[in-house]
Amino acid sequence: MNEQVKIIKGNLIFTKTSNKFEVIEHGYLVYTDNQIQGVYQVLPPDYAPLPVEDYGSRLIIPGFSDLHIHAPQFSFRGLGMDMELLEWLETNTFPEEAKFQDPAYAKKAYEIFVDSLRRGVTTRACVFATVHRASTLLLMDLLEASGLVTFTGKVNMDRNCPDYLCEETQESAEETLEWIKDVKHRHYRNTKPILTPRFIPSCSDELLEKIKMLQLRYALPVQSHLSENPGEIAWVQELCPESEFYGDAYDRYGLFGADCRTVMAHCVHSDEREIARMKENGVYIAHCPESNMNLSSGIAPVRTFLDQGLHVGIGSDVAGGSADFLFRAMAHAIQASKLRWRLADDSLRPLTASEVFYMASKGGGSFFGKTGSFEPEYEMDAVVLDDKRLGHPQEMDVQQRLERMIYLADDREVYAKYAAGKKIL
Amino acid sequence: MNEQVKIIKGNLIFTKTSNKFEVIEHGYLVYTDNQIQGVYQVLPPDYAPLPVEDYGSRLIIPGFSDLHIHAPQFSFRGLGMDMELLEWLETNTFPEEAKFQDPAYAKKAYEIFVDSLRRGVTTRACVFATVHRASTLLLMDLLEASGLVTFTGKVNMDRNCPDYLCEETQESAEETLEWIKDVKHRHYRNTKPILTPRFIPSCSDELLEKIKMLQLRYALPVQSHLSENPGEIAWVQELCPESEFYGDAYDRYGLFGADCRTVMAHCVHSDEREIARMKENGVYIAHCPESNMNLSSGIAPVRTFLDQGLHVGIGSDVAGGSADFLFRAMAHAIQASKLRWRLADDSLRPLTASEVFYMASKGGGSFFGKTGSFEPEYEMDAVVLDDKRLGHPQEMDVQQRLERMIYLADDREVYAKYAAGKKIL
Repeated sequence: MNEQVKIIKGNLIFTKTSNKFEVIEHGYLVYTDNQIQGVYQVLPPDYAPLPVEDYGSRLIIPGFSDLHIHAPQFSFRGLGMDMELLEWLETNTFPEEAKFQDPAYAKKAYEIFVDSLRRGVTTRACVFATVHRASTLLLMDLLEASGLVTFTGKVNMDRNCPDYLCEETQESAEETLEWIKDVKHRHYRNTKPILTPRFIPSCSDELLEKIKMLQLRYALPVQSHLSENPGEIAWVQELCPESEFYGDAYDRYGLFGADCRTVMAHCVHSDEREIARMKENGVYIAHCPESNMNLSSGIAPVRTFLDQGLHVGIGSDVAGGSADFLFRAMAHAIQASKLRWRLADDSLRPLTASEVFYMASKGGGSFFGKTGSFEPEYEMDAVVLDDKRLGHPQEMDVQQRLERMIYLADDREVYAKYAAGKKIL
Repeated sequence: MNEQVKIIKGNLIFTKTSNKFEVIEHGYLVYTDNQIQGVYQVLPPDYAPLPVEDYGSRLIIPGFSDLHIHAPQFSFRGLGMDMELLEWLETNTFPEEAKFQDPAYAKKAYEIFVDSLRRGVTTRACVFATVHRASTLLLMDLLEASGLVTFTGKVNMDRNCPDYLCEETQESAEETLEWIKDVKHRHYRNTKPILTPRFIPSCSDELLEKIKMLQLRYALPVQSHLSENPGEIAWVQELCPESEFYGDAYDRYGLFGADCRTVMAHCVHSDEREIARMKENGVYIAHCPESNMNLSSGIAPVRTFLDQGLHVGIGSDVAGGSADFLFRAMAHAIQASKLRWRLADDSLRPLTASEVFYMASKGGGSFFGKTGSFEPEYEMDAVVLDDKRLGHPQEMDVQQRLERMIYLADDREVYAKYAAGKKIL
């Protein structure tokens, strides 16, 4: 008997597939170090002598992966919501991100960000920092200390941005190389680098080439933005007349899946060719419904992505989105899909609770490997939810309690949290 | 000097018109009993000797009016969100509402509802109960005890609903009469009756006639539902082939503004004739954006309503909406208007923060009289907000602090609350 075996007990609920919830009432979740051994209604005799952390009637769900969030934008979430993407970047985002040149400011801002993420339902995230190497490392130090598991990226941008934030092409590549080396020296357990060219309008061809060289040399994953806004898409076509479609402008430089793990945020207006290429290349989509509402971008055809078997996860996209609490993004995903069905295309059925749960857990979680489920061999990420604040007069089963928490819960319901085998809250 | 004069101090923010916020930093709000005397940057000398309740740097806003909420549905908010209106009524709503025949169940459920409403940003509300007289009175007792100001209605329905909930026509009218008499005997200060025919499909012509007689006899206001869902609208046309449009089916019985104050929830699919009649008759619209997302109803053309000078307020429509916290409904109103702009009609500009604030405060508040503003002679409803939980690294002015609370705040930010001149929290 391995003495590292640990057991927690509670109302387990998770998804193996997107179409239904698996529920084990008052079940046992057995794990060793960072690997789940299994879930059981009745504890196998071998485990019987071991101590059990009993969470009573609370719910236990897998941790969620936030596939797209901007750490420096957390400070102005909920503000300046009366613009579309490109104006919003110029007016709100770039001036705020420029402040992160100052490590003291970055420390203050990033502490608030990391603390909020730690207290929510997210255990893993793909995080944008800014162009600044020092403050990106500071963010990564804080994330590592939190126990959260992340891919975090220093942003690259060498054109079409204000002078105070714009990098020289060579400088951008060199700083990124130095940042990668810095990260290696820090030997983080849970905090990994990800290449982060902001989006095509901010990155010259030459810069994309240099980023690809770093990608090959260090076998790093990539995150960026794709087909969020019609004005942006038209601009990309002007900037890259040779590209067949927006995503092709990344693909021409080898930064669009295939040989490198890639997640693209939004994909609101992806056409058939782009969708086909994402599928072919195994590109992950970070669906960011609240951001797509707030910046008037539109509603992504998630049902199409799911039907065609693409990888789709959920992103909060703070500060396009206001809420880093991922249940909120899941509710927005369902709501947006209903409005798309009513207003734009009633051939695409709205999303269901189990589908958005799957996207936030196992679907998006697979970007990190085997995470987001309680199946054997999955990593041990779990969130314990206590819904006693949310009073109700009637009986409610476990699935109902979870479904309403998608709409009603906030960080007060997060009772305990495990990420990569460690209890972090 | 009237010794009843009271003064509170803080960062005052409110709207006189929908296009901008009025801000008085560290200002004084002076009121007598239930009437606001004025707001001042510098306290007039006459008031100088009086004690001041100083809320420091906290924000003070007028109370909000929730123009449409179903008290018995609070128990299943966030549940059963995968249906459109008519199926949702049959599957979720009617079975739950039937339970309110039992006063013990009603007490348990309504205590949870009233407690939540009391802790939020709402000071006034138009509330649907159920068909049951006893439990409606019980709800009104609880609302009165809370200090909230409401119009609360016993529901009428005599057709197209399950036997276990359906009233006989005569019984429905008689029970409503008895209920009105009961309410009169209770001499509530803040809790008033409102006639509540559920919607046209649930109310026979004969019942509407009888309700109009009660309306005339007791000069009561009216609340109901209008043009929420395409299937519902088609059904109304079948049921009332003589009506020119849905709203006309109420108007033919004198239950659509003009000589009786009326609020209609939704108006998602109101056509030009219906909009013109609402304007002519002074009908209030309760815009319920979250409900209209959750039940796939669509998005109401609020910009059109505002441009044409109709009365528009905000409704949470629990449990079509999941959140009774009205900031959430305001965020949803902005978000929905952006999606409508993008997906359906880009001639209708999205709503702004000041517009939804106005709708939730002074706009909808005028259904109750002079409420929802800090102008002289307005009733004294105010909410004190403490945003210290919502950390930020940068400077922020009062308007920014308010704007982001529309997206970020929950009941933890509600520090104190006044309704009709009394401190109720």
